[in-house]
Amino acid sequence: MELHYLRNMIKVCIIGGGNVAFHLTRQFLKAENIALVQLYNRSLEAIIPFKKQLDIINDISKLADADVYIIATSDNAIQEVSKQIPSKNSLVVHTSGSISMESLSHNNRKGVFYPLQSLSKSKEVDFSEIPICIEAGNEKDLQLLEHLASSLTQKIYKISSEQRQYLHVAAVFVNNFVNHLYYIGNQICKDNHISFEILYPLIQETAHKIKDLDPKSAQTGPAKRNDTLTIENHLKLLSTKEKELYQLLTSSIKDIYEKTL
Amino acid sequence: MELHYLRNMIKVCIIGGGNVAFHLTRQFLKAENIALVQLYNRSLEAIIPFKKQLDIINDISKLADADVYIIATSDNAIQEVSKQIPSKNSLVVHTSGSISMESLSHNNRKGVFYPLQSLSKSKEVDFSEIPICIEAGNEKDLQLLEHLASSLTQKIYKISSEQRQYLHVAAVFVNNFVNHLYYIGNQICKDNHISFEILYPLIQETAHKIKDLDPKSAQTGPAKRNDTLTIENHLKLLSTKEKELYQLLTSSIKDIYEKTL
Repeated sequence: MELHYLRNMIKVCIIGGGNVAFHLTRQFLKAENIALVQLYNRSLEAIIPFKKQLDIINDISKLADADVYIIATSDNAIQEVSKQIPSKNSLVVHTSGSISMESLSHNNRKGVFYPLQSLSKSKEVDFSEIPICIEAGNEKDLQLLEHLASSLTQKIYKISSEQRQYLHVAAVFVNNFVNHLYYIGNQICKDNHISFEILYPLIQETAHKIKDLDPKSAQTGPAKRNDTLTIENHLKLLSTKEKELYQLLTSSIKDIYEKTL
Repeated sequence: MELHYLRNMIKVCIIGGGNVAFHLTRQFLKAENIALVQLYNRSLEAIIPFKKQLDIINDISKLADADVYIIATSDNAIQEVSKQIPSKNSLVVHTSGSISMESLSHNNRKGVFYPLQSLSKSKEVDFSEIPICIEAGNEKDLQLLEHLASSLTQKIYKISSEQRQYLHVAAVFVNNFVNHLYYIGNQICKDNHISFEILYPLIQETAHKIKDLDPKSAQTGPAKRNDTLTIENHLKLLSTKEKELYQLLTSSIKDIYEKTL
Protein backbone atom coordinates (compact mmCIF):
# COMPACT_ATOMS: atom_id res chain seq x y z
CA MET A 1 0.00 0.00 0.00
CA GLU A 2 1.59 3.29 -1.03
CA LEU A 3 1.34 6.42 1.01
CA HIS A 4 -0.49 8.59 -1.52
CA TYR A 5 -3.52 6.31 -1.20
CA LEU A 6 -3.69 7.24 2.43
CA ARG A 7 -4.06 11.01 2.01
CA ASN A 8 -7.17 12.34 3.78
CA MET A 9 -7.92 8.90 5.09
CA ILE A 10 -7.84 8.13 8.79
CA LYS A 11 -4.87 5.88 9.43
CA VAL A 12 -5.72 3.22 12.00
CA CYS A 13 -3.74 0.51 13.81
CA ILE A 14 -5.65 -2.16 15.70
CA ILE A 15 -4.17 -3.92 18.70
CA GLY A 16 -5.60 -7.25 19.80
CA GLY A 17 -6.66 -10.65 18.50
CA GLY A 18 -10.02 -11.19 20.17
CA ASN A 19 -13.62 -10.79 19.04
CA VAL A 20 -13.70 -7.00 19.01
CA ALA A 21 -10.35 -6.69 17.19
CA PHE A 22 -11.53 -9.29 14.67
CA HIS A 23 -14.79 -7.50 13.86
CA LEU A 24 -13.28 -4.00 13.79
CA THR A 25 -10.55 -5.22 11.45
CA ARG A 26 -13.09 -6.75 9.08
CA GLN A 27 -15.23 -3.63 9.10
CA PHE A 28 -12.38 -1.15 8.66
CA LEU A 29 -10.99 -3.18 5.75
CA LYS A 30 -14.31 -2.55 4.02
CA ALA A 31 -14.61 1.12 5.00
CA GLU A 32 -13.75 3.60 2.26
CA ASN A 33 -12.25 6.46 4.22
CA ILE A 34 -10.22 4.34 6.64
CA ALA A 35 -6.69 3.17 5.99
CA LEU A 36 -6.11 0.22 8.25
CA VAL A 37 -2.33 0.19 8.27
CA GLN A 38 -1.49 -2.53 10.78
CA LEU A 39 -2.86 -5.18 13.05
CA TYR A 40 -0.80 -6.11 16.11
CA ASN A 41 -1.27 -9.04 18.45
CA ARG A 42 1.04 -10.73 20.97
CA SER A 43 0.66 -13.95 19.03
CA LEU A 44 0.34 -13.97 15.25
CA GLU A 45 -1.81 -17.06 15.27
CA ALA A 46 -5.06 -15.26 16.12
CA ILE A 47 -4.57 -12.65 13.39
CA ILE A 48 -3.14 -14.87 10.63
CA PRO A 49 -6.48 -14.83 8.73
CA PHE A 50 -5.81 -11.16 7.87
CA LYS A 51 -2.27 -11.75 6.56
CA LYS A 52 -3.13 -11.19 2.91
CA GLN A 53 -5.10 -8.03 3.52
CA LEU A 54 -2.85 -6.00 5.78
CA ASP A 55 0.41 -5.83 7.68
CA ILE A 56 0.21 -8.06 10.75
CA ILE A 57 2.88 -7.89 13.48
CA ASN A 58 3.63 -9.37 16.91
CA ASP A 59 6.36 -6.89 17.92
CA ILE A 60 4.69 -3.82 19.39
CA SER A 61 7.83 -1.69 18.96
CA LYS A 62 7.28 -2.01 15.19
CA LEU A 63 3.88 -0.27 15.28
CA ALA A 64 3.59 2.09 12.31
CA ASP A 65 2.52 5.73 12.41
CA ALA A 66 -1.22 6.16 12.63
CA ASP A 67 -3.86 8.74 13.50
CA VAL A 68 -5.67 6.38 15.84
CA TYR A 69 -4.50 3.30 17.72
CA ILE A 70 -7.37 1.08 18.85
CA ILE A 71 -6.58 -1.17 21.81
CA ALA A 72 -9.06 -4.04 21.60
CA THR A 73 -7.39 -6.37 24.09
CA SER A 74 -8.78 -7.85 27.31
CA ASP A 75 -9.48 -5.24 30.00
CA ASN A 76 -6.49 -6.35 32.07
CA ALA A 77 -4.02 -5.67 29.27
CA ILE A 78 -5.20 -2.20 28.21
CA GLN A 79 -3.08 -0.08 30.53
CA GLU A 80 0.15 -1.98 29.94
CA VAL A 81 -0.32 -2.10 26.16
CA SER A 82 -1.04 1.63 26.06
CA LYS A 83 2.37 2.28 27.65
CA GLN A 84 4.15 0.16 25.03
CA ILE A 85 2.82 2.01 21.98
CA PRO A 86 5.97 3.68 20.60
CA SER A 87 4.13 6.67 19.10
CA LYS A 88 3.90 9.94 21.06
CA ASN A 89 0.97 12.33 21.07
CA SER A 90 -1.20 10.19 18.76
CA LEU A 91 -4.76 9.33 19.67
CA VAL A 92 -4.95 6.02 21.57
CA VAL A 93 -8.38 4.58 22.38
CA HIS A 94 -9.60 1.41 24.01
CA THR A 95 -12.81 -0.51 23.28
CA SER A 96 -13.83 -1.53 26.79
CA GLY A 97 -17.11 -0.89 28.54
CA SER A 98 -15.66 -0.95 32.01
CA ILE A 99 -12.21 0.69 31.89
CA SER A 100 -11.98 4.46 32.34
CA MET A 101 -10.34 6.62 29.68
CA GLU A 102 -7.83 7.86 32.25
CA SER A 103 -6.34 4.37 32.63
CA LEU A 104 -4.58 4.88 29.31
CA SER A 105 -0.94 5.99 29.31
CA HIS A 106 -0.19 9.74 29.23
CA ASN A 107 2.24 9.23 26.33
CA ASN A 108 -0.58 9.84 23.91
CA ARG A 109 -3.96 11.57 23.62
CA LYS A 110 -6.71 9.43 25.07
CA GLY A 111 -10.10 8.21 23.98
CA VAL A 112 -12.66 5.42 24.08
CA PHE A 113 -14.30 3.64 21.14
CA TYR A 114 -16.72 1.14 22.70
CA PRO A 115 -18.98 -0.93 20.41
CA LEU A 116 -21.87 -2.00 22.62
CA GLN A 117 -22.69 -5.46 21.37
CA SER A 118 -21.89 -9.04 22.29
CA LEU A 119 -19.57 -10.13 19.47
CA SER A 120 -18.27 -13.56 18.61
CA LYS A 121 -15.96 -14.38 15.71
CA SER A 122 -18.20 -17.09 14.36
CA LYS A 123 -21.23 -14.86 14.05
CA GLU A 124 -21.68 -12.32 11.26
CA VAL A 125 -23.04 -9.03 12.54
CA ASP A 126 -24.66 -6.08 10.86
CA PHE A 127 -22.30 -3.46 12.19
CA SER A 128 -24.57 -0.62 11.11
CA GLU A 129 -26.92 -1.75 13.90
CA ILE A 130 -24.24 -1.60 16.61
CA PRO A 131 -24.07 1.50 18.81
CA ILE A 132 -20.58 2.89 19.31
CA CYS A 133 -19.92 4.92 22.45
CA ILE A 134 -17.15 7.45 22.06
CA GLU A 135 -15.20 9.65 24.46
CA ALA A 136 -12.08 11.80 24.07
CA GLY A 137 -9.97 14.35 25.98
CA ASN A 138 -10.80 17.21 23.59
CA GLU A 139 -13.40 18.21 21.02
CA LYS A 140 -11.13 17.64 18.01
CA ASP A 141 -10.36 14.07 19.00
CA LEU A 142 -14.03 13.46 19.67
CA GLN A 143 -14.76 14.60 16.11
CA LEU A 144 -12.06 12.28 14.80
CA LEU A 145 -13.66 9.34 16.64
CA GLU A 146 -17.08 10.38 15.43
CA HIS A 147 -15.75 10.35 11.88
CA LEU A 148 -14.16 6.93 12.47
CA ALA A 149 -17.35 5.52 14.00
CA SER A 150 -19.49 6.93 11.19
CA SER A 151 -17.73 4.62 8.74
CA LEU A 152 -19.21 1.68 10.70
CA THR A 153 -22.55 2.80 12.10
CA GLN A 154 -24.97 5.68 12.42
CA LYS A 155 -25.57 4.91 16.07
CA ILE A 156 -22.91 7.03 17.73
CA TYR A 157 -23.24 8.14 21.34
CA LYS A 158 -21.02 10.47 23.36
CA ILE A 159 -20.67 8.75 26.71
CA SER A 160 -18.36 9.81 29.55
CA SER A 161 -16.23 7.30 31.47
CA GLU A 162 -18.54 7.67 34.45
CA GLN A 163 -21.67 7.06 32.37
CA ARG A 164 -19.96 4.16 30.62
CA GLN A 165 -19.52 2.31 33.93
CA TYR A 166 -23.27 2.51 34.48
CA LEU A 167 -24.02 1.58 30.90
CA HIS A 168 -21.81 -1.46 31.32
CA VAL A 169 -23.54 -2.66 34.47
CA ALA A 170 -26.92 -2.05 32.77
CA ALA A 171 -25.64 -4.20 29.88
CA VAL A 172 -24.77 -6.95 32.35
CA PHE A 173 -28.40 -6.95 33.52
CA VAL A 174 -30.01 -6.96 30.07
CA ASN A 175 -27.51 -9.35 28.47
CA ASN A 176 -25.59 -11.61 30.88
CA PHE A 177 -28.33 -11.89 33.48
CA VAL A 178 -31.13 -12.16 30.95
CA ASN A 179 -29.24 -14.97 29.25
CA HIS A 180 -28.95 -16.67 32.63
CA LEU A 181 -32.72 -16.53 33.02
CA TYR A 182 -32.98 -18.15 29.58
CA TYR A 183 -30.64 -20.82 30.93
CA ILE A 184 -32.92 -21.46 33.90
CA GLY A 185 -35.98 -21.60 31.64
CA ASN A 186 -34.11 -24.08 29.45
CA GLN A 187 -33.16 -26.22 32.46
CA ILE A 188 -36.74 -26.34 33.74
CA CYS A 189 -37.91 -27.43 30.27
CA LYS A 190 -35.16 -30.05 29.90
CA ASP A 191 -35.90 -31.55 33.31
CA ASN A 192 -39.52 -31.97 32.30
CA HIS A 193 -39.03 -33.16 28.72
CA ILE A 194 -40.49 -29.99 27.24
CA SER A 195 -38.99 -28.49 24.09
CA PHE A 196 -37.41 -25.13 24.94
CA GLU A 197 -38.45 -24.02 21.43
CA ILE A 198 -41.97 -23.49 22.73
CA LEU A 199 -40.62 -20.46 24.57
CA TYR A 200 -38.76 -18.84 21.63
CA PRO A 201 -41.70 -16.71 20.42
CA LEU A 202 -42.33 -15.45 23.96
CA ILE A 203 -38.64 -14.62 24.37
CA GLN A 204 -38.52 -12.71 21.08
CA GLU A 205 -41.77 -10.88 21.85
CA THR A 206 -40.50 -9.87 25.30
CA ALA A 207 -37.38 -8.35 23.72
CA HIS A 208 -39.30 -6.60 20.89
CA LYS A 209 -41.97 -5.20 23.17
CA ILE A 210 -39.69 -2.76 24.99
CA LYS A 211 -39.03 -0.88 21.75
CA ASP A 212 -42.66 0.28 21.89
CA LEU A 213 -43.39 0.13 25.59
CA ASP A 214 -41.10 1.00 28.49
CA PRO A 215 -40.32 -2.06 30.66
CA LYS A 216 -42.43 -0.81 33.54
CA SER A 217 -45.58 -0.71 31.40
CA ALA A 218 -44.67 -3.97 29.67
CA GLN A 219 -44.48 -5.93 32.95
CA THR A 220 -47.03 -8.71 33.43
CA GLY A 221 -47.29 -11.87 35.55
CA PRO A 222 -48.03 -13.11 39.05
CA ALA A 223 -45.50 -10.88 40.84
CA LYS A 224 -46.99 -7.71 39.37
CA ARG A 225 -50.54 -8.89 40.12
CA ASN A 226 -49.41 -10.06 43.57
CA ASP A 227 -51.06 -13.39 42.73
CA THR A 228 -49.93 -15.22 45.87
CA LEU A 229 -51.49 -18.55 44.96
CA THR A 230 -49.66 -18.86 41.65
CA ILE A 231 -46.41 -17.70 43.27
CA GLU A 232 -46.77 -20.38 45.98
CA ASN A 233 -47.45 -23.04 43.35
CA HIS A 234 -44.42 -22.00 41.32
CA LEU A 235 -42.12 -22.10 44.32
CA LYS A 236 -43.05 -25.74 44.95
CA LEU A 237 -41.72 -26.64 41.50
CA LEU A 238 -38.28 -25.09 41.80
CA SER A 239 -34.84 -26.16 43.03
CA THR A 240 -33.26 -24.26 45.93
CA LYS A 241 -31.22 -21.88 43.73
CA GLU A 242 -34.09 -21.29 41.32
CA LYS A 243 -36.38 -20.62 44.27
CA GLU A 244 -34.02 -17.99 45.69
CA LEU A 245 -33.92 -16.20 42.33
CA TYR A 246 -37.69 -16.49 41.90
CA GLN A 247 -38.29 -15.00 45.34
CA LEU A 248 -35.86 -12.12 44.99
CA LEU A 249 -37.07 -11.19 41.49
CA THR A 250 -40.69 -11.45 42.60
CA SER A 251 -40.10 -9.24 45.62
CA SER A 252 -38.20 -6.75 43.44
CA ILE A 253 -41.14 -6.57 40.99
CA LYS A 254 -43.67 -6.26 43.82
CA ASP A 255 -41.72 -3.30 45.24
CA ILE A 256 -42.25 -1.29 42.06
CA TYR A 257 -46.00 -1.81 41.79
CA GLU A 258 -46.73 -1.51 45.49
CA LYS A 259 -45.05 1.89 45.44
CA THR A 260 -47.25 2.83 42.49
CA LEU A 261 -50.55 1.78 44.05
CA MET B 1 -75.87 -17.67 10.39
CA GLU B 2 -77.81 -20.71 9.26
CA LEU B 3 -77.06 -24.19 10.38
CA HIS B 4 -76.15 -25.70 7.04
CA TYR B 5 -73.11 -23.42 6.92
CA LEU B 6 -71.88 -25.08 10.03
CA ARG B 7 -71.71 -28.63 8.70
CA ASN B 8 -68.23 -30.10 9.17
CA MET B 9 -67.10 -26.95 10.85
CA ILE B 10 -66.04 -26.93 14.47
CA LYS B 11 -68.59 -24.95 16.46
CA VAL B 12 -66.93 -22.86 19.12
CA CYS B 13 -68.14 -20.66 21.98
CA ILE B 14 -65.65 -18.36 23.67
CA ILE B 15 -66.08 -17.32 27.29
CA GLY B 16 -64.29 -14.22 28.55
CA GLY B 17 -63.56 -10.61 27.72
CA GLY B 18 -59.82 -10.31 28.34
CA ASN B 19 -56.77 -10.35 26.09
CA VAL B 20 -56.83 -14.05 25.25
CA ALA B 21 -60.59 -14.08 24.55
CA PHE B 22 -60.16 -10.98 22.39
CA HIS B 23 -57.37 -12.46 20.24
CA LEU B 24 -58.94 -15.92 19.94
CA THR B 25 -62.23 -14.34 18.85
CA ARG B 26 -60.49 -12.27 16.19
CA GLN B 27 -58.55 -15.25 14.89
CA PHE B 28 -61.48 -17.67 14.85
CA LEU B 29 -63.64 -15.13 13.01
CA LYS B 30 -61.03 -15.27 10.24
CA ALA B 31 -60.57 -19.06 10.29
CA GLU B 32 -62.31 -20.96 7.50
CA ASN B 33 -63.21 -24.21 9.20
CA ILE B 34 -64.32 -22.71 12.50
CA ALA B 35 -67.84 -21.53 13.24
CA LEU B 36 -67.58 -19.13 16.14
CA VAL B 37 -71.17 -19.26 17.33
CA GLN B 38 -71.09 -17.14 20.48
CA LEU B 39 -69.02 -14.96 22.72
CA TYR B 40 -70.02 -14.74 26.39
CA ASN B 41 -68.74 -12.35 29.00
CA ARG B 42 -70.08 -11.32 32.42
CA SER B 43 -70.22 -7.74 31.18
CA LEU B 44 -71.11 -6.94 27.59
CA GLU B 45 -68.94 -3.84 27.57
CA ALA B 46 -65.66 -5.66 26.97
CA ILE B 47 -67.05 -7.67 24.05
CA ILE B 48 -69.20 -4.99 22.39
CA PRO B 49 -66.62 -4.52 19.58
CA PHE B 50 -67.64 -7.95 18.23
CA LYS B 51 -71.37 -7.21 18.24
CA LYS B 52 -71.71 -6.98 14.48
CA GLN B 53 -69.75 -10.13 13.76
CA LEU B 54 -71.25 -12.65 16.15
CA ASP B 55 -73.76 -13.32 18.88
CA ILE B 56 -72.56 -11.75 22.13
CA ILE B 57 -74.24 -12.58 25.45
CA ASN B 58 -73.85 -11.89 29.16
CA ASP B 59 -76.20 -14.60 30.43
CA ILE B 60 -74.26 -17.85 30.66
CA SER B 61 -77.46 -19.94 30.78
CA LYS B 62 -78.09 -18.83 27.17
CA LEU B 63 -74.89 -20.44 25.86
CA ALA B 64 -75.61 -22.12 22.51
CA ASP B 65 -74.68 -25.67 21.52
CA ALA B 66 -71.07 -26.02 20.48
CA ASP B 67 -68.38 -28.64 19.95
CA VAL B 68 -65.88 -26.75 22.05
CA TYR B 69 -66.30 -24.16 24.80
CA ILE B 70 -63.16 -22.14 25.41
CA ILE B 71 -62.92 -20.56 28.85
CA ALA B 72 -60.54 -17.63 28.49
CA THR B 73 -61.27 -15.93 31.80
CA SER B 74 -58.92 -15.11 34.66
CA ASP B 75 -57.49 -18.19 36.40
CA ASN B 76 -59.66 -17.63 39.48
CA ALA B 77 -62.90 -17.80 37.51
CA ILE B 78 -62.19 -20.93 35.43
CA GLN B 79 -63.58 -23.55 37.83
CA GLU B 80 -66.74 -21.67 38.66
CA VAL B 81 -67.49 -20.76 35.05
CA SER B 82 -66.95 -24.37 33.96
CA LYS B 83 -69.72 -25.43 36.36
CA GLN B 84 -72.14 -22.89 34.91
CA ILE B 85 -71.90 -24.02 31.31
CA PRO B 86 -75.38 -25.49 30.63
CA SER B 87 -74.18 -28.03 28.05
CA LYS B 88 -73.48 -31.64 29.13
CA ASN B 89 -70.77 -33.87 27.72
CA SER B 90 -69.35 -31.24 25.37
CA LEU B 91 -65.65 -30.45 25.28
CA VAL B 92 -64.80 -27.60 27.64
CA VAL B 93 -61.25 -26.25 27.66
CA HIS B 94 -59.47 -23.44 29.44
CA THR B 95 -56.58 -21.31 28.15
CA SER B 96 -54.50 -21.01 31.30
CA GLY B 97 -50.85 -21.89 31.77
CA SER B 98 -51.15 -22.61 35.45
CA ILE B 99 -54.50 -24.29 36.08
CA SER B 100 -54.73 -28.07 35.79
CA MET B 101 -57.17 -29.69 33.39
CA GLU B 102 -58.79 -31.52 36.30
CA SER B 103 -59.98 -28.25 37.83
CA LEU B 104 -62.69 -28.09 35.19
CA SER B 105 -66.19 -29.31 36.10
CA HIS B 106 -67.04 -32.98 35.50
CA ASN B 107 -70.24 -31.96 33.67
CA ASN B 108 -68.32 -31.96 30.40
CA ARG B 109 -65.27 -33.48 28.74
CA LYS B 110 -62.14 -31.59 29.66
CA GLY B 111 -59.23 -30.07 27.85
CA VAL B 112 -56.66 -27.29 27.71
CA PHE B 113 -55.95 -24.88 24.86
CA TYR B 114 -53.10 -22.68 26.04
CA PRO B 115 -51.59 -20.10 23.66
CA LEU B 116 -48.13 -19.41 25.03
CA GLN B 117 -47.62 -15.74 24.32
CA SER B 118 -47.98 -12.46 26.16
CA LEU B 119 -51.03 -10.90 24.51
CA SER B 120 -52.39 -7.40 24.82
CA LYS B 121 -55.46 -6.08 23.03
CA SER B 122 -53.67 -3.06 21.64
CA LYS B 123 -50.96 -5.08 19.93
CA GLU B 124 -51.50 -6.97 16.68
CA VAL B 125 -49.92 -10.42 16.76
CA ASP B 126 -48.98 -12.89 14.07
CA PHE B 127 -50.90 -15.83 15.50
CA SER B 128 -49.18 -18.31 13.20
CA GLU B 129 -46.05 -17.70 15.30
CA ILE B 130 -47.75 -18.48 18.60
CA PRO B 131 -47.33 -21.98 20.08
CA ILE B 132 -50.54 -23.55 21.35
CA CYS B 133 -50.26 -26.22 24.04
CA ILE B 134 -53.10 -28.70 24.02
CA GLU B 135 -54.27 -31.41 26.40
CA ALA B 136 -57.43 -33.54 26.57
CA GLY B 137 -58.90 -36.49 28.46
CA ASN B 138 -58.96 -38.76 25.40
CA GLU B 139 -57.34 -39.12 21.98
CA LYS B 140 -60.40 -38.02 20.03
CA ASP B 141 -60.71 -34.77 21.94
CA LEU B 142 -57.00 -34.20 21.53
CA GLN B 143 -57.46 -34.54 17.76
CA LEU B 144 -60.34 -32.09 17.88
CA LEU B 145 -58.15 -29.55 19.70
CA GLU B 146 -55.30 -30.19 17.30
CA HIS B 147 -57.68 -29.47 14.44
CA LEU B 148 -58.88 -26.32 16.16
CA ALA B 149 -55.33 -25.14 16.88
CA SER B 150 -54.21 -25.86 13.32
CA SER B 151 -56.58 -23.17 12.08
CA LEU B 152 -54.48 -20.65 14.02
CA THR B 153 -50.90 -21.93 14.05
CA GLN B 154 -48.58 -24.73 12.99
CA LYS B 155 -46.86 -24.70 16.36
CA ILE B 156 -48.95 -27.20 18.29
CA TYR B 157 -47.56 -29.03 21.32
CA LYS B 158 -49.12 -31.78 23.40
CA ILE B 159 -48.36 -30.82 26.98
CA SER B 160 -49.70 -32.53 30.09
CA SER B 161 -51.05 -30.55 33.08
CA GLU B 162 -47.93 -31.42 35.03
CA GLN B 163 -45.58 -30.30 32.26
CA ARG B 164 -47.64 -27.16 31.76
CA GLN B 165 -46.98 -26.05 35.34
CA TYR B 166 -43.26 -26.25 34.66
CA LEU B 167 -43.63 -24.57 31.29
CA HIS B 168 -45.50 -21.75 33.00
CA VAL B 169 -42.83 -21.17 35.62
CA ALA B 170 -40.17 -21.31 32.87
CA ALA B 171 -42.21 -18.65 31.02
CA VAL B 172 -42.17 -16.49 34.15
CA PHE B 173 -38.35 -16.63 34.12
CA VAL B 174 -37.91 -15.84 30.41
CA ASN B 175 -40.70 -13.27 30.19
CA ASN B 176 -41.70 -11.60 33.50
CA PHE B 177 -38.27 -11.79 35.12
CA VAL B 178 -36.40 -10.91 31.93
CA ASN B 179 -38.62 -7.87 31.54
CA HIS B 180 -37.81 -6.91 35.12
CA LEU B 181 -34.09 -6.99 34.27
CA TYR B 182 -34.87 -4.69 31.34
CA TYR B 183 -36.59 -2.45 33.87
CA ILE B 184 -33.48 -2.35 36.04
CA GLY B 185 -31.27 -1.65 33.01
CA ASN B 186 -33.64 1.16 32.07
CA GLN B 187 -33.53 2.62 35.61
CA ILE B 188 -29.72 2.59 35.70
CA CYS B 189 -29.67 4.41 32.34
CA LYS B 190 -32.30 6.95 33.40
CA ASP B 191 -30.49 7.75 36.64
CA ASN B 192 -27.35 8.49 34.66
CA HIS B 193 -28.90 10.38 31.72
CA ILE B 194 -28.07 7.62 29.26
CA SER B 195 -30.53 6.75 26.49
CA PHE B 196 -31.87 3.21 27.08
CA GLU B 197 -32.02 2.91 23.27
CA ILE B 198 -28.27 2.24 23.25
CA LEU B 199 -29.09 -1.15 24.76
CA TYR B 200 -31.82 -2.19 22.28
CA PRO B 201 -29.48 -3.91 19.80
CA LEU B 202 -27.84 -5.87 22.62
CA ILE B 203 -31.23 -6.88 24.00
CA GLN B 204 -32.44 -8.08 20.59
CA GLU B 205 -29.18 -9.92 19.90
CA THR B 206 -29.33 -11.66 23.29
CA ALA B 207 -32.83 -12.92 22.48
CA HIS B 208 -31.96 -13.97 18.91
CA LYS B 209 -28.75 -15.73 19.89
CA ILE B 210 -30.44 -18.56 21.78
CA LYS B 211 -32.14 -19.75 18.60
CA ASP B 212 -28.68 -20.79 17.35
CA LEU B 213 -26.84 -21.38 20.59
CA ASP B 214 -28.13 -22.92 23.83
CA PRO B 215 -28.10 -20.40 26.71
CA LYS B 216 -25.24 -22.16 28.48
CA SER B 217 -22.93 -21.70 25.48
CA ALA B 218 -24.21 -18.19 24.85
CA GLN B 219 -23.31 -16.95 28.34
CA THR B 220 -20.65 -14.23 28.55
CA GLY B 221 -19.64 -11.58 31.09
CA PRO B 222 -17.81 -11.04 34.37
CA ALA B 223 -19.73 -13.70 36.36
CA LYS B 224 -18.86 -16.45 33.88
CA ARG B 225 -15.20 -15.32 33.70
CA ASN B 226 -15.18 -14.92 37.49
CA ASP B 227 -13.77 -11.43 36.90
CA THR B 228 -13.80 -10.34 40.54
CA LEU B 229 -12.49 -6.83 39.89
CA THR B 230 -15.28 -5.92 37.45
CA ILE B 231 -17.87 -7.50 39.74
CA GLU B 232 -16.61 -5.43 42.69
CA ASN B 233 -16.70 -2.26 40.59
CA HIS B 234 -20.23 -2.96 39.42
CA LEU B 235 -21.48 -3.56 42.96
CA LYS B 236 -20.28 -0.11 43.99
CA LEU B 237 -22.58 1.45 41.39
CA LEU B 238 -25.82 -0.25 42.45
CA SER B 239 -28.65 0.44 44.87
CA THR B 240 -29.33 -2.07 47.65
CA LYS B 241 -32.01 -4.01 45.77
CA GLU B 242 -30.05 -4.01 42.50
CA LYS B 243 -26.98 -5.19 44.39
CA GLU B 244 -28.88 -8.12 45.90
CA LEU B 245 -30.08 -9.19 42.45
CA TYR B 246 -26.63 -8.70 40.93
CA GLN B 247 -25.03 -10.84 43.63
CA LEU B 248 -27.54 -13.66 43.46
CA LEU B 249 -27.53 -13.81 39.65
CA THR B 250 -23.72 -13.67 39.61
CA SER B 251 -23.42 -16.48 42.13
CA SER B 252 -25.99 -18.52 40.20
CA ILE B 253 -23.96 -18.10 36.96
CA LYS B 254 -20.68 -18.90 38.74
CA ASP B 255 -22.20 -22.15 40.05
CA ILE B 256 -22.73 -23.44 36.52
CA TYR B 257 -19.26 -22.76 35.21
CA GLU B 258 -17.42 -23.78 38.36
CA LYS B 259 -19.18 -27.14 38.15
CA THR B 260 -18.04 -27.41 34.54
CA LEU B 261 -14.37 -26.59 35.18
